[in-house]
Order: sequence, then C-alpha cells, then structure tokens
Amino acid sequence: MEVPLSAGPGTPTRAPSAVTNGTVDTAGAGSATPVVPAKLASPEFVAVIESALDDFFVAREAAVGELGPIFVEAAEALRLFVLRGGKRTRPAFAWIGWQGAGGEPGGAQGDAVARACAALELVQACALIHDDIIDSSRTRRRFPTVHVDFEQRHRDRGWAGDAAQFGASVAILIGDLALAWADDMVHASGLDTAAIARFAPVWANMRTEVLGGQLLDITGHAGGDESVAAALRINRYKTAAYTVERPLHLGAAIADADAELVAAYREYGTDIGIAFQLRDDLLGVFGDPEITGKPSGDDLREGKRTVLLAEALRRADATDPHAAKLLRTSLGTDLDADEVERLRAVLTDLGAVDDVEHRIADLTERGLAALETSSATATAKATLRAMAAAATRRIA
Amino acid sequence: MEVPLSAGPGTPTRAPSAVTNGTVDTAGAGSATPVVPAKLASPEFVAVIESALDDFFVAREAAVGELGPIFVEAAEALRLFVLRGGKRTRPAFAWIGWQGAGGEPGGAQGDAVARACAALELVQACALIHDDIIDSSRTRRRFPTVHVDFEQRHRDRGWAGDAAQFGASVAILIGDLALAWADDMVHASGLDTAAIARFAPVWANMRTEVLGGQLLDITGHAGGDESVAAALRINRYKTAAYTVERPLHLGAAIADADAELVAAYREYGTDIGIAFQLRDDLLGVFGDPEITGKPSGDDLREGKRTVLLAEALRRADATDPHAAKLLRTSLGTDLDADEVERLRAVLTDLGAVDDVEHRIADLTERGLAALETSSATATAKATLRAMAAAATRRIA
Repeated sequence: MEVPLSAGPGTPTRAPSAVTNGTVDTAGAGSATPVVPAKLASPEFVAVIESALDDFFVAREAAVGELGPIFVEAAEALRLFVLRGGKRTRPAFAWIGWQGAGGEPGGAQGDAVARACAALELVQACALIHDDIIDSSRTRRRFPTVHVDFEQRHRDRGWAGDAAQFGASVAILIGDLALAWADDMVHASGLDTAAIARFAPVWANMRTEVLGGQLLDITGHAGGDESVAAALRINRYKTAAYTVERPLHLGAAIADADAELVAAYREYGTDIGIAFQLRDDLLGVFGDPEITGKPSGDDLREGKRTVLLAEALRRADATDPHAAKLLRTSLGTDLDADEVERLRAVLTDLGAVDDVEHRIADLTERGLAALETSSATATAKATLRAMAAAATRRIA
Repeated sequence: MEVPLSAGPGTPTRAPSAVTNGTVDTAGAGSATPVVPAKLASPEFVAVIESALDDFFVAREAAVGELGPIFVEAAEALRLFVLRGGKRTRPAFAWIGWQGAGGEPGGAQGDAVARACAALELVQACALIHDDIIDSSRTRRRFPTVHVDFEQRHRDRGWAGDAAQFGASVAILIGDLALAWADDMVHASGLDTAAIARFAPVWANMRTEVLGGQLLDITGHAGGDESVAAALRINRYKTAAYTVERPLHLGAAIADADAELVAAYREYGTDIGIAFQLRDDLLGVFGDPEITGKPSGDDLREGKRTVLLAEALRRADATDPHAAKLLRTSLGTDLDADEVERLRAVLTDLGAVDDVEHRIADLTERGLAALETSSATATAKATLRAMAAAATRRIA
C-alpha cells in the first residue's frame, strides 16, 4: 500500500485545488497568515484509515449480531460516529512516525501498520463520546451526540424510565466499547507480537495521559484554577501527548526506533502539540465560523480555561482592573455578537493574543529544531515540517 | 508461588471454620440446602490477587504524580475501589482454567499468570463504576459509589458548577482508566508475547460480551421485554460469559490448551455461569439480608427483569390473571415487608421458584458433565466441581 501521507514539500498549495485535494497546506509556512484551511492528512491517507476502520466493523458484524438488536444499533452508532468525520490527525502522526524511523509503506506490513494507526480513532471516539456526556453537548459534527441520539430513540419508542438517563447510559457503554475495540483493532492489525509488545507501553501512557488531561480539564474548570500553568498542563496532556507526541512515539515503537529518535519525536510532539492547541484557542475566539464550523467566540461563551484567557486575566489583574472585572463577569455567559467583539478587543489590547502568537512561534521553532537534528528520514522531516505548519498556522 | 485456589474436595466444610477460612464450600454439594456462605476463592488466593493489584498501583505512582493532584486522587479512588472487596471470582476461574490445562503454579510464570488474572478485577471495576452511574446507585459495598464520592468532594470544596455532573464526569473517566489499565496490567504481567497474543482475542470477546450484556440489561428494562428468553440472554452475556466462561477460556489460552478443552470449559462456564446468576436471582428475592448484605426483596422493589420474575409472569399470564395483575402493579414499586412476603408467596405458588431451581440443577448437571469428559487435570476437575457447587448453591 503506497499512500502519500501529505503532498509533501514543494507541492504547490496556494492554488484553490489545495483545499479540494485536502493536502497539507505548506503555503502558510512562509507567509504571515494562512490562506487556506490546512489539513494534516491527505485524502488518500484519510481514505486508507477510514477503510481500515470500516473493515474492522464489517469483520465484527457476525459477533455483534449474536449479541442482539440493541448491540447492533450500538455498534452501528459507533461505526457512523467514527466514519462521519475527523481529520485523522493522530493516525497521520503515527504513520509518519513509523516511516521516519525507517518503516517502508507497502505490502502486508504497511497494511498492518495502517490498521494499528487507525485504532487511534477508536480511542478518540471514546474520548469524544464521553466528553460529550461530561459537557452535556447536544451536537457534534452537526449531528446529535451519541447520548442525545439514544435519548431520542428512547423517547421515539415510548420506553419506560428517564430518556436522558437512558441516552447517557448507552453512550457510556458505547464509549467503553470504543476503548475496548481500539485495543482489539491493534491486536487484530497484523502487527507481529514483538511490535505489539513495543507498542503496548506507549499506548498505555497515551491513554492514561489523555484521561489525566480530561480530569485536569474538568477539575480546573470546577476548581477555578485560572493560571497559565494550569492551562498549559491541560494542553500538555489532553492535546500534545495524545495528538502528536504519543502517536509519533507509537509509530517509532512499531519501527523499533532508537532512544534518540524517540526523544526527538517527543520534543517535537510536545511543542507542536501545545502550539496546535494554542492555535485552536485563538480560533475558538477569533475563528471565522464559516470556516471553523463553530459559532464565533464559542470559547468565550463557554468560559473555556485556555492559555489565551488565562494570560489575559493575568495581564488584566496586573495592569487593568477594569478589564479584569469585565473578563470575569463576561466569560462563560451568554454573550451577543457585540459583547464577543468587545472581549476580542480586550484580549488583543491586553497583549494576550500577541503573547499566544509568540508562544506558538517559539514552540514551533523549538519543535522543528529537535526534528531537524534527529535521525528521522529526510522525507519524514519534510512532511513533519509541513504538518507543523498545518497544525500551528491553520485557520480552521 | 504456590497458592491453594480452594480447599479442594474432601476438605471438611461443615465446620464453622469453613466460613472463617473462606474456603470453597463443598458441603452443599450433596445436601438439600447450603449451610454456610460459600466463597469461590481461598483467602490465600484472594491475597495473591490483591497484592498483584496493589503492586500495579504502586508501580504507577510516579507516573500518576506527574499528571497532577486530581489524577492522584482519581488513581487512589480506583485503588481503594479495587482493593475494598470483591470475591475475586473471575481471577479464580482464570487461574484454575490455566492450571486445568497444565499450567504449573510457582516461579516467575505463575506470578505472571496471577497478575494477568488479577487484571480481570480492573475490567470489573470499570463495569461496576459505570454501572453505578447508569443505575444512579449511591452506595456499593457500604461505601459511597465513585460518582457520589466525587460529587461530595466537589460540594465540600465549594467548587463551581453542578456537583452531581462533576461526580458523574469523574466517575466516567475513572471507569475508563480502569478499562485502559486492565490492558496495561496484562501487558505488564510478564506473560510472554505469544501467550498475550493467544490471550488477546479471548479478552476482546469477553469485554465486548459484558458491554453487550449491560446494553441488553438497560434496554430490556427500558423496552419492557418481559420474556424468559430476554432474561436468559442477559444472563448469558452479562454474567456467564464474563464471570465464568471467558475467565476459564483466558486461563486456557495462556496455557495454550487444545480446542476440545476450550470447548468443555466454555460449556461448563456458560452453564454454571447462568446457574450462578439464577441463584443470585433467587437470593435477590428470598435471600437473608443478614447474609447477603442487601435489603430483603430488593429485586422486587427494583422490578429487576430476572428469569425468576419473567417465568412468574409467563405462568401467571397463562393461569392466574389475578396474580399477573398483582405482579405487574407491584414490581418496581416501593414495597413494604408484608408486600414483599406476599409476592414471595405468589412466586412460589406459581411454581416459578421450582422452575428456576430445576433450571439451576439441569444447568449444573450439564456443565459438570462437559467438565467430566474433558482433558482438564484431575485436580482442576475437583476444584471446578467444588466451585460449581459454591456458585450455584450459595446463600450469599
């Protein structure tokens, strides 16, 4: 299986076709602002991952059927959830991590690696399905969330008991199923037992870290820790380790990479991963809803404890009590468009936006430096440079 | 490591010391009623399993600490949950399954197998913690359930937001952590990669089946399926596969048992597992609260859709409309002691209790017959006979 992970360096990407091709946007790397929505994985790679996921569900159909109609419904809901979208960022980093450590795409081994990479999407399905219960989110990717979906099925069928409790219960179990099946997919991937043994401890750390990040997130919110350090710690575990660092590390483990390359990947992954989240935080306040698909200023309405908002509060407390008061009374409330606009101006005037942009630039530079001096293949380095640009300069 | 799984056959068990020793109760096997609360695993075996679990948590302390104080709290809550009790039934069946297929206790291999068996308790922790959210249970083993515990911590600290939502959220994540750590414990057990490769597909089936059984359970309840077949299907997946059949199968897989022995174990496991649940159903209505630790007649108040109640409804519908009406209007309501007593008499008079007792006897006979003709070692056969008696004739 030869799959171009990304268009790679040198591919013209300023043309509108870059968007339709969905290739990595390297255009932004040298320009002041990104010009097209960047994607981290090529459509060909996305298709390979989705086909591996679909195959996995097809292979389970008989076993699923034996467990009865509700289980068939649950498995189908999970299949749709997994296949309905997502950027396949984590599989893309795992795949390039493997190649950068000498993995050769093509043949049975390449197929096995792609399947193991695709399993990351099932871990992610668990994280999102459970997160949606935790956040009481009603929609995801423009569809009802899993718990809302089953709440509605309960209502439509006139079943006994509390529909919302039923929906949440089914969604808890479907999330558990996704987590269990993620493992099963790794074991059924065709990776040899030695590769699985190298993979397992990294996989273990990744899962613990993302759960730790989620715990930090909800506790930070409830406990009201407004510090920049707290926000950065959440980014470190909930995003960086889980989205970039450990996926690269998993790929390296499959390829039996040496400790130096693993260390370089982890430095790149931590830095680029945090930068990725910081970009996300900026988009959550300043992003164009037409492009991001999320309502404008949503993070402000949610009062999300991002580094951007923590930094703004820190600066306001030090220099501008009026702005501090405005932020504390506004964040997390039902803001109208004018109020969102006003808060944006406050964040910018406080210098918090510049601060976050500087952090992104510094982290990106440090991550790329670690990559550059590593023993990763030249192709992988070029792709990871492009992915760093796509992750940190994207507009959606 | 030489650990007596049970006292084995021939051990005097009618003496009161049998209770304090916690050995398998084989006394009931030949008598009309069990005379002492039976345990499936010896105290020595329980101690080995608990020590393996504790070691696992200790080995994680440094990694846990890095993730911050709330993660330390979460991991500690999970540790206490896992170590606070439980009969260690699943590890016991896995352990004897391994021995029956030629596994030799003692040495590094025995230690590794014990650790892999102990990992079943982490799967069970996930199942129970998530079940308690699903059922809105406030206590488990006389302690607050995990979601109630963290709800209380939220309240005690005067944190922002909804305390109950916070408690449920943390408990969802702690359950996920238990599920992920169960795998990690298998991988860190010291089993060789070939054994883990044989173990993995059975482990996969077991997890899918228990989640399937839980889905059937909540949907059967909501959807009002009153049939005996529906209740049996829940028993098959939620209890039999998960508690007896797959644990034995896991042990067999570690020992690389042949297909015939696996088939015999699975037949024994399915039959004895269902019989175990049917005994549980009888205890849920007729059990002595002093011994079971659960309020008398609790299953009646919950309107739990057991085979016993399904059979009673089926019989009442066919022969006694008055009893049918009484059952339908009473089950799942807040019954007082007299009403519980009256319903017990109705269940007995309808012949439902005898029917369930016959099912238990038939299943036990069939399961033991499969075991008898198998190639399991003589010691394992004797122990599994004793465990079948303990599982199906217990009074708590």
